Parts: sequence; structure tokens; C-alpha cells
Amino acid sequence: MGTGGLSVAKQHAMPRMLPPNQRYITIDEFTLESGETLVNATVAFTFMGLLNAARDNAVLVCHALSGSADVTDWWASLLTQASPALDPAKWCIICCNALGSPYGSASPLTPRTGKRLYGPDFPKTTIRDDVRIHKQVLDILGVRSIYCVIGGSMGGMAALEWSLLFGKDYVQSMVLIATAARQSAWGAAWAENQRCTIRCDPKFCGGHYDVNDPPAAGLAAARMAALLTYRTHQSFEKRFGRHGTSTSSEAAYLSQSYLQYQGNKFNTRFDANCYLHILDKIDSHDITRNRYPPGLRKEEAVGKVLAQIRQPTLVVGIPTDGLYPLCEQYTLYENLPNAAFAQLHSEDGHDGFLLEAAQLNDLLRSFLGM
Amino acid sequence: MGTGGLSVAKQHAMPRMLPPNQRYITIDEFTLESGETLVNATVAFTFMGLLNAARDNAVLVCHALSGSADVTDWWASLLTQASPALDPAKWCIICCNALGSPYGSASPLTPRTGKRLYGPDFPKTTIRDDVRIHKQVLDILGVRSIYCVIGGSMGGMAALEWSLLFGKDYVQSMVLIATAARQSAWGAAWAENQRCTIRCDPKFCGGHYDVNDPPAAGLAAARMAALLTYRTHQSFEKRFGRHGTSTSSEAAYLSQSYLQYQGNKFNTRFDANCYLHILDKIDSHDITRNRYPPGLRKEEAVGKVLAQIRQPTLVVGIPTDGLYPLCEQYTLYENLPNAAFAQLHSEDGHDGFLLEAAQLNDLLRSFLGM
Repeated sequence: MGTGGLSVAKQHAMPRMLPPNQRYITIDEFTLESGETLVNATVAFTFMGLLNAARDNAVLVCHALSGSADVTDWWASLLTQASPALDPAKWCIICCNALGSPYGSASPLTPRTGKRLYGPDFPKTTIRDDVRIHKQVLDILGVRSIYCVIGGSMGGMAALEWSLLFGKDYVQSMVLIATAARQSAWGAAWAENQRCTIRCDPKFCGGHYDVNDPPAAGLAAARMAALLTYRTHQSFEKRFGRHGTSTSSEAAYLSQSYLQYQGNKFNTRFDANCYLHILDKIDSHDITRNRYPPGLRKEEAVGKVLAQIRQPTLVVGIPTDGLYPLCEQYTLYENLPNAAFAQLHSEDGHDGFLLEAAQLNDLLRSFLGM
Repeated sequence: MGTGGLSVAKQHAMPRMLPPNQRYITIDEFTLESGETLVNATVAFTFMGLLNAARDNAVLVCHALSGSADVTDWWASLLTQASPALDPAKWCIICCNALGSPYGSASPLTPRTGKRLYGPDFPKTTIRDDVRIHKQVLDILGVRSIYCVIGGSMGGMAALEWSLLFGKDYVQSMVLIATAARQSAWGAAWAENQRCTIRCDPKFCGGHYDVNDPPAAGLAAARMAALLTYRTHQSFEKRFGRHGTSTSSEAAYLSQSYLQYQGNKFNTRFDANCYLHILDKIDSHDITRNRYPPGLRKEEAVGKVLAQIRQPTLVVGIPTDGLYPLCEQYTLYENLPNAAFAQLHSEDGHDGFLLEAAQLNDLLRSFLGM
């Protein structure tokens, strides 16, 4: 695989657990959409499989809020099916870690000067910044065009921006799952609730906390709310409530213990400043930003921008998704000139895109012509 | 109106704003379901209209988590329709404030000894405790039977317990709106998230805070999450997002400002210990508790208990309700032997029961034979 002559080394510069098989590329200077410049901006990434001679068999997978570049960690099920859609024998499967994530790319956990971390002063980044800096990684890797860019939730926002920023010749097709053309007022409201929760934690200190004594209670409580927005009444009833012999208080205890466990577990792998950073990034998502004059009605502007995307696209919606509901997927499907629509059936709501592996595998195989 | 010879005085013992037109009865001793005894337990209540000679025209309205006995405050719209269902010329409309609420009944804000408030040491109460102590108020008022007990959300839980505790002769009919036979694992999980949020606030101090410097940030953040669970994606998009010319960040700003305003406003009228108390009360709701042996499958036990309720009942479900969804209303409707079912159409989710006044008024009038 071509690496553009740059060294692509494994590195473990940061103190927390990073995906063991990921690689890193550091870009000397990268100017963000805001105008600020990141110096020595590292991007963590993974690849599986090899580029073909034409260097056009890359499948780019884009991760969601709490994901990493390690697709085997959060979408393992798409790799381990009997006939996997993400087949490294056929594709060169690439995933790059978003800026601001704690999983190895430049983030609030990156040293700014000497040993002092950026913390809350890490500059705001957008989905477009991720896509532009990840494009540099793909260039270095020698990718000539992307056969398909696939993403769920925030990953789908990135997939849209890949098509809009680099066009039909570079991005051959897209799969958009449980995502949106722009962050909704609803999604932004939930994000704000989570910010307020994190800020409540006395250890937060405006983001200037000791990473060895972080605002764990606040981050756990925020994650609990987030997790609930990713699930549904019926998934909780099935798991904890309806079918057993437990009393209401036992069912409550079980569901509450589960939530607390998940909230606490999140602290072993995430960071409050990184979480806030990515909430802001998602809130900034709007494919119409600076592409249409601000006076245009928003629905119309969304339609006009989506109409520019000519690539074959599969839009996947989850009927039980309460966070990025079907209506958002219909907006994509109805306005994209070359889109198909598929429902992913799940009781689990938004998280269905991570949980319904067999169904999603079939949808992807069919769309990818496998 | 008969008052059983006891004085029913207006009082303003507590420092916060209480509904101006409510009245108070103090019960010398009241033993809770837990076995603990409340001494001098006050119940705040309102009534509008007069009992008829047979003393059987009482319509009992039960309030939800953040409501008060002042129906004119939160269901004013049912009183001000051209032909109001809650017509004081026909009914004696009574509403009693739940134990643990900050609106005047015994609660964490009640002095325990001298000037020291109960705070977090106020004993846990259940929906059944509310119903039993409110029954004493109705006895004092001279009510011989309730023509209809009406409640949404927690109020519907109380209505179910009224029928189960006092039977068909005393409770003639019920209207249950957006409620449940037992608190779901889903509802309990959201409650837990809100508890964790309040506990994050450094001012909370395990509930032993100064009421003049309360954990306002924690309570505001918890209220924000609660409010979102009462609403829907579509209601937020309609209000803040989809139809305007605003950018995503403007829509986010508007929805976030709205949420923060609502969270802060809640602090002017509620109390964190009271909030936690009522969350616990709702979590304890289970019509099968101590009514069926614990070994019975929960669905079966719910069915058997509901089958005992012979009163004509109107079950009202809101299709967009994500907190107490239609499936919970169907459980009630399908298992109650004498029930009708109606949908309340609303884009606003659970809060539809407070917002869709004209529709609800029509449903109530029809059910009440008006």
C-alpha cells in the first residue's frame, strides 16, 4: 500500500488506552474552518485489506460520537458475518478518527505545549474539518477514489460532507445510516442537556480539570441520558421489565444499575472535554452552511444542496430511532437524486445501526454489489 | 359544603409561593405504606363548585409530577373552553396535592422540628399513600362517592389506585391519560438519569442543602432532560428548526436557550428534594405490588389486577408519547373489563395531555355524558 513516502508509524504518545492496531499520521499545519491552525495535528486511522492496482477499492467507514478508528471494536459484527460486507479480501477498509476524539487524533487530550494538554482550549472543529484532514490521510495512503463511504449517526454526517467536498469522481457512492442533513433542534437540545450535566460536576472546573481526577459523575450522567436517547421504551421493557416476574422496583433497580454501569464504564474510555468538543462538532453540522445564502428557507436550501450529490446512495432509517428519526432519513432520500431507501428493523432505536449486524450486512452487500 | 366539623383554613406556613386559592387539612397521624408515621401531615387541596345533595357529583382531578392542587394553573384550558368538561356548575371539582410536592402538602420542605425542614429525611411515600391520605380529605369534605377520577401521567397512576383501594361503589368511573399500570424500566431509567444529574451539583450535599442556596444547576439540568422526554423531535423542529431560515447553529441556540430558560424557571417553583421524592414515588408505582404473589409473571399479574377494576374507564393514549407510549395504554385498555380507548393527537408527545385542551375537553365531555 502506498504511503506517499511519509512514515506511518505506530505510536502510543498518550497515557490512555488506544486501539492497539491503529496508525498515525501527523500533519504539520492544518487550518480549520474557523481559521485557527492546528500545528502537528495527528490523525489516528486503521486500514484492513489492500488497495488494488487502480487504488479505487477503498471503503471508508466513518465513526459516530463515541467511536474510534478501530472498526473491529464497534462494528466487528460486519466483519465477522459468514459473508461480510466489510471484506478485507475485497476492499481496503479505512477508518480515520475524528478530531477531538480521545482515541488518538488531535484532541483536548493532546499536549499543547510541553506536557500541558489543550483541555477546553482545543479549538472547535467541524465535520468538514474532519473530512478535509482525513482526505490528507487518504492521499498519503494513495487512495485514488473511494468506492463507498459508509457512516451512521455522526459518521453519516461525515459521509455527506465527503461527497460535497470532494465530488462524484472521488466518492463513488455513499451509505447514510440514521443521520441527518443538518443537526436538528431536537438533537441540539439533548446535547445542551448533556453539557449542563457535565458542567454541574464540581470537578469540571470549566474544563480545566486534572485528567487523573476528572468530572466522572457528570460525564457518567451525561452518557446515561445519551444512551437513553439511543434506545427505546420497548428495548428497556424487553430487557428489564415486561416479561419477567420482577416487581416494578426490581425492574427499576435493574435498569438503573445497567445505566450506572454504562455511565461509569464510559469514564474508562472517554474524556469530558472530548465529549463536549464532539457535541459542539455535531451541533455545527449543516450541509447548507456557507453553501446557500442565509435568507433561503432552510428546507429549500437543504433540498438544493442534496440535489448536487449525484452518487448512488443508500439511505438507511430505523423506524424506532427517536434521535434521528425516519423523517430525517426521508429528507435525505427524497432530495438525493440517486438514492435508495431501506429500513433497518430494530427495537433498539438509534443504536440499531450498531446492533442489527446481520440485517445491515445484507443491506450493505446488496448495495455494494457483493 | 360539608367539612366534617374540622377547620379548613387558608394557610401560608411555607416561605415559597403557593397557589393562593388552595386550602389545607392537617391529619394528626398518618401511617405510610412503609410503616413510618407522618405527624401533623398537611394536605393542600382545591375545590371548585359545590357538592350536590347526594354528594356524588365530585370529579377528582389528580396532578402529575410537577403539578399542584391548583387545576386552574396547569389545566386551565379545560375550565375555559366554551363548554368546559370541568364545569363547576355541574361538578364539585377537587384536586389534592401529592405528598412530597413543594406545593403545600407535607414534603421535604415541611418543618420537622422547629424550623428545621425534613429535607432528604422526609419519609418515602407511594401513590397509594397519596390516595389514602387524600381519601381522608374527601371524607372530611363530605364526598360520598366520586363520579369520575381523572389523571394524566402520575395522576393516572393515582386514579388506578383510587379504584383499586376504594372500589366500584366509591369510584364510579375513571379517565386514565398517558399513564401506566406500573412504572416501566424505561421511565425508571430516565428518573435515575435525573437523580444522577441532581447529585452532581456540588450544592446538593446529599440533600442537606440550604434552601436559599439550592442545587439549582442540577435541578435545572434534570428538568431539561425531563422536558425533552415529554416532547418530541417533531415538536422541536416545528418550533425551532425546520421551517425558518435559521442556520443549524441558530436553531440549536434557540432550542438550547428555551431549554435553559425552562430549567432555570423550574427552580423558581420546585425543590430538588421534592423532585427526587416524587421520582421515587413514581418509580414505586406498581398496581400489582402486594396484590399478587411475586412469582407470577408480571404481565399476568397486571392483567389480573386490572381485571378487578369494573368501573367504566376511558383510556387516552398519545401516539407520539415516548415516555408512556401507546403500548402502555393498550395494556390498560385490553385488560380493563369496561374500558374505551381514545387517541389524543399531538405532535408534542407526553405533554400533549396538558397541551391539547380542545381535544381532551371533547373526549372528557363525551365520556362524562355532558
